[in-house]
Amino acid sequence: MEPQRQTAGSHNELARRFASVRALSEALVAPLSDADATVQSMDDASPAKWHLAHTTWFFETFVLRDHIAAYQLHDPRFPFLFNSYYEAEGRRHARGRRGMVTRPTLDEVLAYRAAVNDALLTAIDDLPDAAIELVTLGCHHEEQHQELLVTDLLHLMSENPLEPAVWPAAPKVPVAMPAPIGWIESDERVVEVGHDGQGFAFDCEGPRHRALVPAHAIADRTVTNGEWQRFIADGGYRDARLWLSDGWGWVQREGVVAPLYWQERDGVWTRFGLDGRRAVDPAAPVTHVSFYEADAYATWAGARLPTEFEWEAAAQGHQAGAGNQMDAAGPVEPRPAADGPAFFGDVWEWTGSAYRPYPGFRAVEGAVGEYNGKFMNGQFVLRGGSCATPRGHARACYRNFFYPHQRWQFTGVRLAKDL
Amino acid sequence: MEPQRQTAGSHNELARRFASVRALSEALVAPLSDADATVQSMDDASPAKWHLAHTTWFFETFVLRDHIAAYQLHDPRFPFLFNSYYEAEGRRHARGRRGMVTRPTLDEVLAYRAAVNDALLTAIDDLPDAAIELVTLGCHHEEQHQELLVTDLLHLMSENPLEPAVWPAAPKVPVAMPAPIGWIESDERVVEVGHDGQGFAFDCEGPRHRALVPAHAIADRTVTNGEWQRFIADGGYRDARLWLSDGWGWVQREGVVAPLYWQERDGVWTRFGLDGRRAVDPAAPVTHVSFYEADAYATWAGARLPTEFEWEAAAQGHQAGAGNQMDAAGPVEPRPAADGPAFFGDVWEWTGSAYRPYPGFRAVEGAVGEYNGKFMNGQFVLRGGSCATPRGHARACYRNFFYPHQRWQFTGVRLAKDL
Amino acid sequence: MEPQRQTAGSHNELARRFASVRALSEALVAPLSDADATVQSMDDASPAKWHLAHTTWFFETFVLRDHIAAYQLHDPRFPFLFNSYYEAEGRRHARGRRGMVTRPTLDEVLAYRAAVNDALLTAIDDLPDAAIELVTLGCHHEEQHQELLVTDLLHLMSENPLEPAVWPAAPKVPVAMPAPIGWIESDERVVEVGHDGQGFAFDCEGPRHRALVPAHAIADRTVTNGEWQRFIADGGYRDARLWLSDGWGWVQREGVVAPLYWQERDGVWTRFGLDGRRAVDPAAPVTHVSFYEADAYATWAGARLPTEFEWEAAAQGHQAGAGNQMDAAGPVEPRPAADGPAFFGDVWEWTGSAYRPYPGFRAVEGAVGEYNGKFMNGQFVLRGGSCATPRGHARACYRNFFYPHQRWQFTGVRLAKDL
Amino acid sequence: MEPQRQTAGSHNELARRFASVRALSEALVAPLSDADATVQSMDDASPAKWHLAHTTWFFETFVLRDHIAAYQLHDPRFPFLFNSYYEAEGRRHARGRRGMVTRPTLDEVLAYRAAVNDALLTAIDDLPDAAIELVTLGCHHEEQHQELLVTDLLHLMSENPLEPAVWPAAPKVPVAMPAPIGWIESDERVVEVGHDGQGFAFDCEGPRHRALVPAHAIADRTVTNGEWQRFIADGGYRDARLWLSDGWGWVQREGVVAPLYWQERDGVWTRFGLDGRRAVDPAAPVTHVSFYEADAYATWAGARLPTEFEWEAAAQGHQAGAGNQMDAAGPVEPRPAADGPAFFGDVWEWTGSAYRPYPGFRAVEGAVGEYNGKFMNGQFVLRGGSCATPRGHARACYRNFFYPHQRWQFTGVRLAKDL
Repeated sequence: MEPQRQTAGSHNELARRFASVRALSEALVAPLSDADATVQSMDDASPAKWHLAHTTWFFETFVLRDHIAAYQLHDPRFPFLFNSYYEAEGRRHARGRRGMVTRPTLDEVLAYRAAVNDALLTAIDDLPDAAIELVTLGCHHEEQHQELLVTDLLHLMSENPLEPAVWPAAPKVPVAMPAPIGWIESDERVVEVGHDGQGFAFDCEGPRHRALVPAHAIADRTVTNGEWQRFIADGGYRDARLWLSDGWGWVQREGVVAPLYWQERDGVWTRFGLDGRRAVDPAAPVTHVSFYEADAYATWAGARLPTEFEWEAAAQGHQAGAGNQMDAAGPVEPRPAADGPAFFGDVWEWTGSAYRPYPGFRAVEGAVGEYNGKFMNGQFVLRGGSCATPRGHARACYRNFFYPHQRWQFTGVRLAKDL
Repeated sequence: MEPQRQTAGSHNELARRFASVRALSEALVAPLSDADATVQSMDDASPAKWHLAHTTWFFETFVLRDHIAAYQLHDPRFPFLFNSYYEAEGRRHARGRRGMVTRPTLDEVLAYRAAVNDALLTAIDDLPDAAIELVTLGCHHEEQHQELLVTDLLHLMSENPLEPAVWPAAPKVPVAMPAPIGWIESDERVVEVGHDGQGFAFDCEGPRHRALVPAHAIADRTVTNGEWQRFIADGGYRDARLWLSDGWGWVQREGVVAPLYWQERDGVWTRFGLDGRRAVDPAAPVTHVSFYEADAYATWAGARLPTEFEWEAAAQGHQAGAGNQMDAAGPVEPRPAADGPAFFGDVWEWTGSAYRPYPGFRAVEGAVGEYNGKFMNGQFVLRGGSCATPRGHARACYRNFFYPHQRWQFTGVRLAKDL
Repeated sequence: MEPQRQTAGSHNELARRFASVRALSEALVAPLSDADATVQSMDDASPAKWHLAHTTWFFETFVLRDHIAAYQLHDPRFPFLFNSYYEAEGRRHARGRRGMVTRPTLDEVLAYRAAVNDALLTAIDDLPDAAIELVTLGCHHEEQHQELLVTDLLHLMSENPLEPAVWPAAPKVPVAMPAPIGWIESDERVVEVGHDGQGFAFDCEGPRHRALVPAHAIADRTVTNGEWQRFIADGGYRDARLWLSDGWGWVQREGVVAPLYWQERDGVWTRFGLDGRRAVDPAAPVTHVSFYEADAYATWAGARLPTEFEWEAAAQGHQAGAGNQMDAAGPVEPRPAADGPAFFGDVWEWTGSAYRPYPGFRAVEGAVGEYNGKFMNGQFVLRGGSCATPRGHARACYRNFFYPHQRWQFTGVRLAKDL
Repeated sequence: MEPQRQTAGSHNELARRFASVRALSEALVAPLSDADATVQSMDDASPAKWHLAHTTWFFETFVLRDHIAAYQLHDPRFPFLFNSYYEAEGRRHARGRRGMVTRPTLDEVLAYRAAVNDALLTAIDDLPDAAIELVTLGCHHEEQHQELLVTDLLHLMSENPLEPAVWPAAPKVPVAMPAPIGWIESDERVVEVGHDGQGFAFDCEGPRHRALVPAHAIADRTVTNGEWQRFIADGGYRDARLWLSDGWGWVQREGVVAPLYWQERDGVWTRFGLDGRRAVDPAAPVTHVSFYEADAYATWAGARLPTEFEWEAAAQGHQAGAGNQMDAAGPVEPRPAADGPAFFGDVWEWTGSAYRPYPGFRAVEGAVGEYNGKFMNGQFVLRGGSCATPRGHARACYRNFFYPHQRWQFTGVRLAKDL
């Protein structure tokens, strides 16, 4: 993260923001049973209870323990359980065994949250700037885990043969099919990218720097489910020529024939969501596709994926807080686009850019320096934000990143092409 | 199972037994949270909730569905979830994914139990003999799952770094160290083994037949923790010559250095149990050892494991219902032996006999014929019954069986030798 | 092995036998290139060159090194390469990496053989009895490896998409289809089984002891390819009810639909052999079937596999040296049976007996004691001998053993049933 | 590849080049036995015989079969065996089973080469331009396989516990330790990168385009073995903070403690090479390190890896044909650097750039279009060329690429830093 000086007045503001972020996490687990919140459905996912506790551990460790004299840990056994990957913080529970921890219970974890919330809000006015920065970081960190909590929960429910709905479906509003893709053209030019120092950003978003983008065109909307069904019908998942070699291996090994959570019966496609299994909406953006699928689709469409800087340059004039993002607990789903280009919300958009450091990047000192830099190989950058991204979390310079086979996030596709 | 004709009076008796068996299962899960009852800790183990539901599915399917006209399934989606391995009953949920089923909840499964209990008790007086036999089989089946429920729960709790205790420890009564092993000698002779047709038995326990046992001696008690600690101290886990080749591979691959759940710190051995982590009692029978370990220990001791017929011949005069077996919910643990030879309770005893069919064995027709016969390769017979075996379930001809590397059951060792 | 006292005269006899055994191994590799002799096609198989060298290492280590003062190893680096599994002989090359050893070359290994042959034949008249016994053991040991060399070579060639023939096919003699299976009946009786001390036997074949066999019938011939084709046509590989649970898992995981090396095209079945791919002969015994397949076939046929003692009792009156066994280098293949019951040659016959020690079994002291005893779990006994067994190697009490999924040996099926 | 028009005179030149390239491959295998040339030591590596045959298949398929009327394949079974990964050319032998093909023999493969050489040289004067381009491409393709042949052979020999030397060691010339690293500085600027259309290049090297490089400094030489030993001594392989997360997982899972082929005994480091095991030369460039190791070293050194464009811009003025590259068969090894900056030879240099397409990249049509584009994910670009790169093959715009854990190539490290 980029450290920001805090004024006294901002402490009140930060206290309100902290309380609000914490409350959303708790609202998200309100419909969950103890078991729903405990089970881990795959190594990539974590239990909801773990997300609740890990985000709390983050505040307790880096703010309370490190900055409050004589602070007593809520439970000295919790750091082993709830540290995620911070090597500097010592040994920790194996990632793939997070689902074994039936105790502490969900109620005990909620009590842990309450205790840390109280301690932090009591202390906040006296915290030094370094700690205040960590509170800010912790809020953004928790927002990231809110999105993971939702997508991990979706994965868990999808593994249950009964396919339970966590929330009732939102009412559907009939929407016209989107217009054909329009193309936003750009000559070769040098652009400024990366965080400009105004407001919060994670360390990997900077330093701001110049980058040369080639002459290109970028689509004014993302690919829809209807378009994706044509790709399927055209044999897209069976034609090796469309795929990266590793992607073709993945398709064959995993037997992939459609986006995650899709099923076909008698020619009708459905998808599973937190509101249960429902028809695929052809007008809505396709989601739950891997980088491999996104790349193969682009090849099939005679296009390519945009680079992260092409995307960022195109998005810089748009409202990062607009669009279909997460405001409250409830089912989340990409929705048919309204008129005009939109770059934020609905789905994270795979770019063709590998996740690597910017010129001059330096991870911050200490354990929180493990936040981003150590993941900079083998993953691709996604831009924009999704229907599961807490509103306010997205920005044009934001860099999300996943491995090319992963698709349990709300991941979609925007096309680009060379001019 | 061996079918038994039932008289009218026996229906009341059976109804009482049914109610009593069902009540014990529910008592066992009383201290569990929804999460405790839902998580699966390894492929070999099942969630407590699954045990509760699967035993209920057994009664519902083979008694109610098959023998009561117009019976409506409690939930038509449950057979897919709760069939264990009956191929004849169709497709079913993958064994290793049983822990994904957070819904139905524990409460919903208990309601399923109540509904099936009511339906069965209402119908029992009018059930045909074939159905009555299946009720009897279902009770014995549920007793087997009670033991698994306890051992699976122990394994789950052991995977939690906090090592929670499910029940408080039973009070310890000081007991003298057992006397040295005495040997019960036998000349070569032909013995009768297998179920004699009096009372219930599983199909694999018969037919009763003659078998020749060689001249041999069998120990009058099982090996103790104290004796096992000497095996460890003597380098037993590091000496390839003591081990079967597959066993040595297992020891090295898994890094095995002691029985399951044992830990050593500063020269003191502790074990984990459902009452938490406590000191190993040197006077109590060793348990949670694999066949490989049992065989290596016997080699180290200059002895061998008994065959299942040597064991059965020696046990025939002893009370199968005596000794340390499970009477009620609560922590279970092998206890130091009282005076005199005992063959039942405390620990299942590995024999040197592969689990294979007896001469003339025929599996019964239909789905319940998959109960035993199809598992007759690669496993070894265990005899006796353990501290987690419901009292009344054991008998001299009972054949338990596990793979040679498995040790999450209460498995121990009795020695034998050639004369 | 069972030690035998040797007279002076027998040294000449043993020298002749030693030379003859050694010569057959070399004849078997005569048509092989250096590459043919070096490559390892799977973990279970070894390169031909390794067999040549390992059998030589056995004589060099246990006879020359241990019994000839001042004997100098041919190459001090060879023991690490060519020890198979003798823990007492120290560290050794990983079994699965035997195919990496392109050097020493085949010619260098043949030179190693010549040197050890010379040294041993020079020394043989002066060897102490203990060493003479080891020479005898070494000859039998090498005969076992001759059979493995042939079956491992067959597996290697089968992995080459070109399916090369190592030898030209033997001329086919038209043979009438065998008569339907006849049944040899036996009342329950106590039989003597195991090696009687006359001549050589491996240690696992004794001690000779009494065993009770139940009333039963055993088939007078093995199952033919034609019969097996009816099993296939009847859906035998697709009917879970016929299979052991582990066997059904194996069939599904491996996609097994026929014996190893069989292929079907346009309704015609062929098999691959060391003479290339040729039509399956319906009159010949089926081979290259696993225990799982043998057991499923027997279930389908309303029969079962014989126990090893039923088999031994039935075979005791028959000529162990008769039938289709290996006399010289060349293609080997089961052949249609001549008239009358035969128990030796063509195919090893799976029994229903787990490979376990006899009453009173004791492995011999020292490294050669690792020969048999440490493999006594998880494997099944096969009896009889095959077309690839060197003639003279078989006997009624001989116990071969493999895991239930293995089928690259010449393994077949004889039925039995209860009376 | 970038197509180039060919003049008549260039056909003679091309014929000479073709003959010369083909001869070097054959010289490389001159010291190999049939077995040496047949065995495959890991999935990533191929047998020498396969390299010889695959490169021949390339010419036979894309030149002779596609451009010579009535050309008869040398052996119609070879395309299945020797196609590498061209999906458009149909099914092919599994990559990991290339070592099973003991037949055809090395001699038969050499005969295949001779036949294709003759056919191609006979036809070359009449080949159309498109075919001539493919001959050119085939020569460059074969040069790539020459380097792989050498590195795959080194890996194979390293798997042999005897560690055989394929060639005698080259005489060592005493060389002074290199001077400390000097830094070549550059302001931020726009540079031209990629192939300029003069002479041959692979398709992935273009199109030529502008790129912005930031202000930075790049080292004037690569990291030496001596410097790497200081990294080891400083605990570099044990400090998680220095490593990418995936790299740290790799180090722990594989137990990595030094570059591939290094061993330490009594404080002395040796390395295995095609001339056997010898002392590590502290003055020579370190090699056989993975991207993960390169990145961790750079972090330890307070630097970073250069991007591929920083490297290319720095290398553009240097002689690509100079330095320690492969001129003939014999042992190859990085050598201590002569004075002055050098960018070619000795070791391929890991860059921090993911291997992705350039703006405007289009794979060529048809099967040869699978050459590069489909591998553009998950791999990193290496620049420069190594001691095993055939001289003439390297150029400033050349893009080699491997996965971050791979290190059996001659891969090394050049540092860079931000200004």
